[in-house]
Amino acid sequence: MGELTTTVAHPLDEVDAAVRAALAVEGFGVLTEIDVEAVFRARLGVERSPLRILGACNPHFAHDAMERDANAALAIPCNVVLEALDEATTRVSIADPATMMPGADLADLTADARARLSRVIAAL
Amino acid sequence: MGELTTTVAHPLDEVDAAVRAALAVEGFGVLTEIDVEAVFRARLGVERSPLRILGACNPHFAHDAMERDANAALAIPCNVVLEALDEATTRVSIADPATMMPGADLADLTADARARLSRVIAAL
Repeated sequence: MGELTTTVAHPLDEVDAAVRAALAVEGFGVLTEIDVEAVFRARLGVERSPLRILGACNPHFAHDAMERDANAALAIPCNVVLEALDEATTRVSIADPATMMPGADLADLTADARARLSRVIAAL
Repeated sequence: MGELTTTVAHPLDEVDAAVRAALAVEGFGVLTEIDVEAVFRARLGVERSPLRILGACNPHFAHDAMERDANAALAIPCNVVLEALDEATTRVSIADPATMMPGADLADLTADARARLSRVIAAL
C-alpha cells in the first residue's frame, strides 16, 4: 500500500495543528499547503468537503535523497492529506515515501522516513 | 521513465516564467513553490545551486482523479523542478503523472496529463 492513514474524531483544523506538531517531532516541516476545496470552488465552481494537502519535508532526508538521486526532487515534499469526513471527523493520509521515491539507492532513507511518518499517524 | 525533462539555455528566473506560461496553455496553474536552496541554507546550513520545485495542478484533472480515487490527492500537485546548472543554463524536469498516480482507473487521465506536460517541455 502506498499510504499511511487514520481517521480522527476531531475537526479538521484541530487535526491540522496536531499533525504539524507530530510531524515536527519527527523532523518534518510543512513547506506548502493547498486548500483543495477553495481551489475547486474558484477554478471549477464545484463544491466539495474541506480537503487540505500539506507538503511535509524533513530537510535532512531531502538533502540526502537529492545527493544520491537528482530526481528525488520530483517526489518532494511528502503529501499529508487532511479531509473532513464531517464536522467532527477527519481522515489523515500520508504518501508513503518508499512508493513515491522508489529505487534501491534510496531504500534505507525512505524506510526511515516511512517509519517516522507511521509514528505521526500513530500519535494522532 | 518517471520524468519529462529538458535543458534550456536561459537563466532560472527566465525559464520559471516560460514554464508557468507553457503550463497555463495546458490548463495547469502553479499552486505551490519551494525554494530548495533557501530551505537547505536555513535548515541545514548547506549551500547548493538554485533549485525550485513548483507544484502544478490542472484543476479539471485533479477533480476527475479525486472523484475516481480518493487517494489521488496523495500525488497532487505535479512537481516541476527547475535547477540552475550554471547562470545561463536551467534543467527542467516534470514528474510523470502516470508514474506518480498509477492505477488502471486513472490511466486515461494520467496519459492525457502526461501528453500536456510533454508539450510544456517541448515548448521551452
